[in-house]
Amino acid sequence: MGRDMSERPIAAIILAAGKGTRMNSSRHKVLHEVAGRPMIEHLLASVDRLEPHTLVTIVGEYREQLEERLAQRCVFGVQDPQLGTGHAVQQAEDALADFDGDVLVLYGDVPFVKTQTMRAMIDRLRADDAPAAVVLGFEPDDPLRYGRVVSQQGQIIKMVEYKDASEDERACTMCNSGLLAARSEDLFALLSRVKNENAQAEYYLPDIVNIAIADGRNCAVVSCDSAEEVAGINSRAELAAAEAQWQETAREDAMANGVTLRAPETVFFSYDTQLAPDVVVEPNVVFGPGVTVASGALIRAFSHLEGARVDEGVEVGPYARLRPGAVLEANSKVGNFVEIKKTTLGEGAKANHLSYLGDATVGAGANIGAGTITCNYDGYFKHQTKIGPRAFIGSNSALIAPVNIGADAIVAAGSAVSRDVNDGDLRMVRADQLVKPGWADRFHDAMKKKKAAAKKNG
Amino acid sequence: MGRDMSERPIAAIILAAGKGTRMNSSRHKVLHEVAGRPMIEHLLASVDRLEPHTLVTIVGEYREQLEERLAQRCVFGVQDPQLGTGHAVQQAEDALADFDGDVLVLYGDVPFVKTQTMRAMIDRLRADDAPAAVVLGFEPDDPLRYGRVVSQQGQIIKMVEYKDASEDERACTMCNSGLLAARSEDLFALLSRVKNENAQAEYYLPDIVNIAIADGRNCAVVSCDSAEEVAGINSRAELAAAEAQWQETAREDAMANGVTLRAPETVFFSYDTQLAPDVVVEPNVVFGPGVTVASGALIRAFSHLEGARVDEGVEVGPYARLRPGAVLEANSKVGNFVEIKKTTLGEGAKANHLSYLGDATVGAGANIGAGTITCNYDGYFKHQTKIGPRAFIGSNSALIAPVNIGADAIVAAGSAVSRDVNDGDLRMVRADQLVKPGWADRFHDAMKKKKAAAKKNG
Amino acid sequence: MGRDMSERPIAAIILAAGKGTRMNSSRHKVLHEVAGRPMIEHLLASVDRLEPHTLVTIVGEYREQLEERLAQRCVFGVQDPQLGTGHAVQQAEDALADFDGDVLVLYGDVPFVKTQTMRAMIDRLRADDAPAAVVLGFEPDDPLRYGRVVSQQGQIIKMVEYKDASEDERACTMCNSGLLAARSEDLFALLSRVKNENAQAEYYLPDIVNIAIADGRNCAVVSCDSAEEVAGINSRAELAAAEAQWQETAREDAMANGVTLRAPETVFFSYDTQLAPDVVVEPNVVFGPGVTVASGALIRAFSHLEGARVDEGVEVGPYARLRPGAVLEANSKVGNFVEIKKTTLGEGAKANHLSYLGDATVGAGANIGAGTITCNYDGYFKHQTKIGPRAFIGSNSALIAPVNIGADAIVAAGSAVSRDVNDGDLRMVRADQLVKPGWADRFHDAMKKKKAAAKKNG
Repeated sequence: MGRDMSERPIAAIILAAGKGTRMNSSRHKVLHEVAGRPMIEHLLASVDRLEPHTLVTIVGEYREQLEERLAQRCVFGVQDPQLGTGHAVQQAEDALADFDGDVLVLYGDVPFVKTQTMRAMIDRLRADDAPAAVVLGFEPDDPLRYGRVVSQQGQIIKMVEYKDASEDERACTMCNSGLLAARSEDLFALLSRVKNENAQAEYYLPDIVNIAIADGRNCAVVSCDSAEEVAGINSRAELAAAEAQWQETAREDAMANGVTLRAPETVFFSYDTQLAPDVVVEPNVVFGPGVTVASGALIRAFSHLEGARVDEGVEVGPYARLRPGAVLEANSKVGNFVEIKKTTLGEGAKANHLSYLGDATVGAGANIGAGTITCNYDGYFKHQTKIGPRAFIGSNSALIAPVNIGADAIVAAGSAVSRDVNDGDLRMVRADQLVKPGWADRFHDAMKKKKAAAKKNG
Repeated sequence: MGRDMSERPIAAIILAAGKGTRMNSSRHKVLHEVAGRPMIEHLLASVDRLEPHTLVTIVGEYREQLEERLAQRCVFGVQDPQLGTGHAVQQAEDALADFDGDVLVLYGDVPFVKTQTMRAMIDRLRADDAPAAVVLGFEPDDPLRYGRVVSQQGQIIKMVEYKDASEDERACTMCNSGLLAARSEDLFALLSRVKNENAQAEYYLPDIVNIAIADGRNCAVVSCDSAEEVAGINSRAELAAAEAQWQETAREDAMANGVTLRAPETVFFSYDTQLAPDVVVEPNVVFGPGVTVASGALIRAFSHLEGARVDEGVEVGPYARLRPGAVLEANSKVGNFVEIKKTTLGEGAKANHLSYLGDATVGAGANIGAGTITCNYDGYFKHQTKIGPRAFIGSNSALIAPVNIGADAIVAAGSAVSRDVNDGDLRMVRADQLVKPGWADRFHDAMKKKKAAAKKNG
Repeated sequence: MGRDMSERPIAAIILAAGKGTRMNSSRHKVLHEVAGRPMIEHLLASVDRLEPHTLVTIVGEYREQLEERLAQRCVFGVQDPQLGTGHAVQQAEDALADFDGDVLVLYGDVPFVKTQTMRAMIDRLRADDAPAAVVLGFEPDDPLRYGRVVSQQGQIIKMVEYKDASEDERACTMCNSGLLAARSEDLFALLSRVKNENAQAEYYLPDIVNIAIADGRNCAVVSCDSAEEVAGINSRAELAAAEAQWQETAREDAMANGVTLRAPETVFFSYDTQLAPDVVVEPNVVFGPGVTVASGALIRAFSHLEGARVDEGVEVGPYARLRPGAVLEANSKVGNFVEIKKTTLGEGAKANHLSYLGDATVGAGANIGAGTITCNYDGYFKHQTKIGPRAFIGSNSALIAPVNIGADAIVAAGSAVSRDVNDGDLRMVRADQLVKPGWADRFHDAMKKKKAAAKKNG
């Protein structure tokens, strides 16, 4: 073994040929989302940390969905028809024709395998006893229906499907996760010898282990601590369970990091949510992808954040919606029923009520009155609104972009502003205060009669 | 038994004389809601599938509430005073004087008994051994306080209250749900022989079984698989538990049907919610009665839907409120803080922000700007707003109904439109852009002085 | 013992010198909130019911935070450096120099000890056998890591840290909560004899018990029924667990009191929330401090209430936000996306959609149209809006305070009203309905070309 095995390149084969019939979906199973991204992206993120030489995804049903999504990130093997896991792995042989190294076999619907687990499999494969294959085993609370890895001190004696297992073999608690590592030359050589002489007429991947053992080679099992890590997702119920599991871990991590979650079970994170210590999150908050919140910020109940940066001391919500491109600088405030999109709110600026700010910059200390709307869209193009520092936008105003409101400027309540306002000026767009004395009394009288008549007739 | 028993008519007696003291409510217990409808309506829906000849509800306390609610659907017997379950059933005798058939005894506060369970009781009653009575039993995890059905191979030996039971009888795990089936002639004949010689001086319905057995008649027990199915609801806590149980089942059913529920425990359905496969529902969504959602629709977080039809590819929310009469046609979009009532949104139309659309039709491809309000109410009558296809309603506009906005028409931002707008026209209702140079600076100066003075004095 | 011990005054020493490192916070541990108030305030509320003669809080890290918060309510001892619980209690000696009575030792991070538990400790201390110290013990499900109270029939034999305990002592299930009561003269005399000869070189409070026993005095243990009552809060996860526990109890209490909680797990109360029987609360409602809701009110989903009074028959929400000073009189209605602050809504008045009412009074039967905004803030001062009974505020109006709208008056839709409106008058602030025939068609043509060109070029 004179060569440094840690230099051996790694390839990963990801099986994703089945669309997931139990999902009952027109979307491929592995594209269903957990924590705001498709499950296969979770797996790819973990694989990427191994810096693999080649990634091969085996596609079949709904293959165009995967080919489109993953085009830049892997090569593809096509499995059609689908004749078992061994057959699936064989479809990577062409893509790996020039590859000589260690191969991991992964599953698109088993997305939460950690990098360190994959690494442990590779490390075992590279150990001095040079196993022909390394199987990832796990010990679930209830092992009933899983295939068994019969082993002694980490050396596999036999891989056996549950239905074919003897009483003694069934008593074995180490189950087969399906994940496997092998050197490329071993993998495809062994696969070529697998037969489909079984009820389903399928080629099973675990058979290569039994063949290698019959050849006198040793094969090893590496144990995964957590059954959840290798859980497959085959139905919407399992998808929801995976989401719940993911969220629970994320909540615990956030709290350990010094974030207050008043009701953790009501807060939903995305895969990339970043909350600093001493952030307080009230009940019922949803974080979409791309959110960063700095220390001392308060995220109030019923808020929804996506693609937003929230700086120190900012107060968000209740009922605030931050959309991608929202930047809330220190000590600014976004209140109830306010939507912020592609907009920077300067230090200490406030938009407290019932407003829509899109494609705008708001200067430090500006006050956006209740009901303010930036009219950023003309039906064809989006336009910018600039509001200067300390400007005061009166309530119920419409700012018709492109438009600039100067520093310290005031827009009178109810104005639809279509021209720039200079620093320190007042802009008022308001018709005269017309009065019709007694009109309301006469209207009420007439309407009451009409209503009474309508009731009588109808 | 020469006659076809399946032709025997069915009557149901529903006991609902007690108001439910533990509810601590001015509303009758059985009118409290689960999944958006009164619990007794759940029971009636299950009974109705048996196509009963007669429904008799036994009322007592708060009887006027039940008589009003159920007037069209059943006849009533009055139990006053309330002298036990046997006495309650006797109050149906007059209503069933001309009825000759099979009678089911049900309970208004045991609302989730399934039709197939009722059917099983009737089928057993009609079996060749012609039992005098059929009791519905169940086997709870903890049978401690329930009356027991002592039986052998489905034949009842004795009905016994827990407090009167021997050690051996208490060891029996089959409990009495209270539900019972008997032929009408048997039921009332046996009831007339029940005595109230017990501590409570009440007439107990189960006594008829013991009397029949003493007569040499056979009586049968039918077992209910689920203790939850026969759980009674006597307090708000039990009401909440029933709701939780109902929701859990509904969520599982939706997921099995191909609906994605990202956080199932935060989604609340009504009894009649219909979601197609490949609907995605984000966290924190409430479905009131009367909602149908087609495939490919996305219901985002914090949305609330009642009486709404959502077609294919529609996106709803976050924070959308759909009220009765909302029809969202294919690929339309309703965004945050938008309320839709008695309004059809045409294909691809959008109302993305802070709007109220009531009593309106919106044409295909129309764009409803942020802050648009249909002024549909004049304090006395509601009026219609019609918006043509591809029309563009500028932000912060008020459409004063009745009013028509033509196809491709544009309403300028901030307009209060009180007259019709023709196809392809622009309507702008906006005062001049008045400028007061330097006014804001002077105002700020004056106000800062005033504020400083106020601080000094107070 | 000739003197009436019930006259002996009570002092409490609250240990709060540690900031709570595991909280990872710039806020002192005991100032983190549960149910809307700092945990130490929960403890103080329970202590206050004993009418203590003196309250001493022992501060250390972050002491300025506690000194500011509690300045009016207790005296302080400073522990710096921190040399153990015994040392901490000694820092109260000066503050209690003139005090002769019974002393309770409490912990700021064990905030949910009930008054009756404290009372039981004091009562035991005053019993005829005059124990030198009374320890509060508890029996957790898993006692593993806690110090043990070895006792026989309530008489303590030995206090022992878990790590120093023998097998037999570890088998003892009575654990030391840390809470202790002793007469002031005993407490400080015993403390002066405690040594720090242990691995941490700390002075342990429980040692006084062992010293007293060695003196031949008797010491007693009082058992706390619930391990949760004496649970310490040292991390955000424990804070969340305490909140969850508190909420669960509050929900059960509300339901027992006749409140319907459709989904109790989604409703969050504050420490002082008051809901009358027959209030119905839909899913996802948050009650901040200071809310009272009268019978027959309906709080719909996604509502957020703070400092609000809701009278009989009122309907709130969905998506209503009531802020401090909101008073909703009988049968009034606040609908979706409506914010109410320092505003009284008269009987039967309605604000159903997308409005902000601040610093206002709304007369009985008034109708506030969708999108109405009270412009209560000029950037410097807040001003009042008065709306008379039965007034009708047209949709999308801005009421520029200070302003009065008379009884039965009507404000036309889209008006920005800056002057008072008399009873029965109509006020309309609206520019002319300008029409530009064909303008929209020409705009669409031009923009489509521009868009096509932009696409081509970009």
